[in-house]
Amino acid sequence: MFSALSHLECPRCAATYDAFVRQGLCPSCASPLLARYDLPSVSLQRSALDERAPDLWRYHELLPVSAPENIVTLGEGMTPLLDVPRLAAALGLDRLWIKDEGLLPTGSFKARGAAVGVSRARELGVRAMAMPTNGNAGAAWSAYAARAGLDMLVAMPVDAPMITRVETAAAGGRLVLVDGLISDAGRMVSAAVAGSGWSDVGTLKEPYRIEGKKTMGFELAEQLGWRMPDVVVYPTGGGVGLIGIVKALGELVSLGWLAGPLPRMVCVQAAGCAPIVRAFDAGASESQPWADARTVAFGITVPKALGDFLVLAALYETGGTALAVTDDELLADVALVGRLEGLFLCPEGAATVTATRALVASGWIDPHEEVVLLNTGSGLIYPDTVPVDAVTIPADGRLTLPAVS
Amino acid sequence: MFSALSHLECPRCAATYDAFVRQGLCPSCASPLLARYDLPSVSLQRSALDERAPDLWRYHELLPVSAPENIVTLGEGMTPLLDVPRLAAALGLDRLWIKDEGLLPTGSFKARGAAVGVSRARELGVRAMAMPTNGNAGAAWSAYAARAGLDMLVAMPVDAPMITRVETAAAGGRLVLVDGLISDAGRMVSAAVAGSGWSDVGTLKEPYRIEGKKTMGFELAEQLGWRMPDVVVYPTGGGVGLIGIVKALGELVSLGWLAGPLPRMVCVQAAGCAPIVRAFDAGASESQPWADARTVAFGITVPKALGDFLVLAALYETGGTALAVTDDELLADVALVGRLEGLFLCPEGAATVTATRALVASGWIDPHEEVVLLNTGSGLIYPDTVPVDAVTIPADGRLTLPAVS
Repeated sequence: MFSALSHLECPRCAATYDAFVRQGLCPSCASPLLARYDLPSVSLQRSALDERAPDLWRYHELLPVSAPENIVTLGEGMTPLLDVPRLAAALGLDRLWIKDEGLLPTGSFKARGAAVGVSRARELGVRAMAMPTNGNAGAAWSAYAARAGLDMLVAMPVDAPMITRVETAAAGGRLVLVDGLISDAGRMVSAAVAGSGWSDVGTLKEPYRIEGKKTMGFELAEQLGWRMPDVVVYPTGGGVGLIGIVKALGELVSLGWLAGPLPRMVCVQAAGCAPIVRAFDAGASESQPWADARTVAFGITVPKALGDFLVLAALYETGGTALAVTDDELLADVALVGRLEGLFLCPEGAATVTATRALVASGWIDPHEEVVLLNTGSGLIYPDTVPVDAVTIPADGRLTLPAVS
Repeated sequence: MFSALSHLECPRCAATYDAFVRQGLCPSCASPLLARYDLPSVSLQRSALDERAPDLWRYHELLPVSAPENIVTLGEGMTPLLDVPRLAAALGLDRLWIKDEGLLPTGSFKARGAAVGVSRARELGVRAMAMPTNGNAGAAWSAYAARAGLDMLVAMPVDAPMITRVETAAAGGRLVLVDGLISDAGRMVSAAVAGSGWSDVGTLKEPYRIEGKKTMGFELAEQLGWRMPDVVVYPTGGGVGLIGIVKALGELVSLGWLAGPLPRMVCVQAAGCAPIVRAFDAGASESQPWADARTVAFGITVPKALGDFLVLAALYETGGTALAVTDDELLADVALVGRLEGLFLCPEGAATVTATRALVASGWIDPHEEVVLLNTGSGLIYPDTVPVDAVTIPADGRLTLPAVS
């Protein structure tokens, strides 16, 4: 058995659906659908993973693709979980890790969702896909669509990172720029795909992107030696990664591969677009659309996430929290982490550093707790986050070096 | 025994040197020095690698770092070796692979040399390092130097990729821009470090960068199931990667882990800077400085490589060849590989595609031979290699989709 996928389930109304035909949102309540597996049938032992390649397909029993020949891969997965002792000391923590998702194809964690989402789409007969994106998902899905031989259209705000336009174009994706936000792009895509034969593969519009994202949770558990940290800090736009990590850890607990409580999940948003933080503070189960959304951490500029209720449920269930950080703070932390650890984080990743500092200061995180930060993409995508200070000298000039300290 | 390093050897005059103190070039003939290992003492079995983490340190017996606590890591290594069947068909080949070095920290293969070079430098007591660079090496060494707590100065041409300035700055490296070529920067660094306490860590100026680069060869052999391909096509500037792959495969043959002839190595240069190709065509053992060097494949703009004689020897010994490709050709291949395989190559990597096409056309490569191309960096570093064609629509606009083909 290559995949233990059994059916799809609506987390809102509990209806179940056939996972072996194309599905979008729940036909009765318009919620995203989640993939469910026949976990008791999985006979895989953890130790057997040693012999598998270091990519996310090593967990194929717990992924939705039915057969190995349907895998569309660019070598994604098993990103490093880096011990960052200098940063830990700066934040007042004993044990801090950064999982560096910048080392994935296309430079962001979006590659995980695209690899699994595109593989499954092709397996189910999809030939053309469209999505709204803040840039990185469009770049990733375009790359995997090209690899799969499928048609891809992405609609992204004109303010999305320039390089994601280039990535989309390089992969032959159809690119539409929207003079607005991802929510505007989303409305357009939804309207356009209706009855067209194109599939809407926007965030949580189909059930399999999250299955790719959840492999962050599998890897985290494996890399820690099959245990869970105390706290996971996650930059949250659409929130699929956060939901996915909780889903993955829950599946591993069900399999008996992990024990103990799930980590407390922390949802980090930017002060300029923090609908889930506002909802969490109000104890609400859903968020309200955020007006005039704006932040340099462009990947998390999502005014209203389709899966907000799942993110909030994950925070409440794990004893987690949600907080917003300012652009100035997170940009300072891009520089701090570069200097201390040599890691060039994306602004979304840097936001988790700022948030952690605040949570240590408030006492919500104890200094002895083990904390994992998710850096969701490469700083290479965001060239304007770091000021460059350099002297220029002529070709026949002289260089002087300071004394060695 | 963590490392089997035994001594350093001069490949030109055969003198040997102590590997456990800092060394630069050969004091008697100014050649780069190469690390040599006590291979008969290595009792490691290939199968034992399965239990090691998927990074380049899995080969630590064959690397120069003496103790695990001296490793400086950002999670580098075990980049994917991707089967590219559509591109193979387009080039008229049965079996073609691309090893994607873009998925390394800092976005290029330079991370391998930096990880091992910085680790060993710190182990030997170095506190401050300086180098000339075409950008990517400076970005990588700055990152690892920051991670190690060492001081780093990089001197790069003003034409080097903008993002590598940002990467250097993000890591807190000291950045000097040179209104000239890497050779100009190299002269300045050499002059400045003399007697300063700073170490010149330019290409092959110290013996350990190549030890990191050679892990491309180890991984290639392991990923192919401990066998060698027929041909390896490599974009060549300083040439350390090409020399390193041949060195690695030779070490594995000595260990008895591999059998058979080494792959025929192909050195690819840009038509605007092809000193090694010119030397190869003349049957020479060294290259002459290339005047007015210029190519979009900036990483290989090296007018005169210190290790040119080692590159040429590797080509002659393996029955390899050298050829140059034009910027127009390689840029067309960036787009081709994006469309066919979803991979956004760096221009240097795309040059290997152009070269392979020419070698198949000339009959130098047989269609049934197995060929490996090295993509030495991420396309993210080179945003100007792909034209972007997009329409912009207003936030309340309408999107129309073409019919599904």
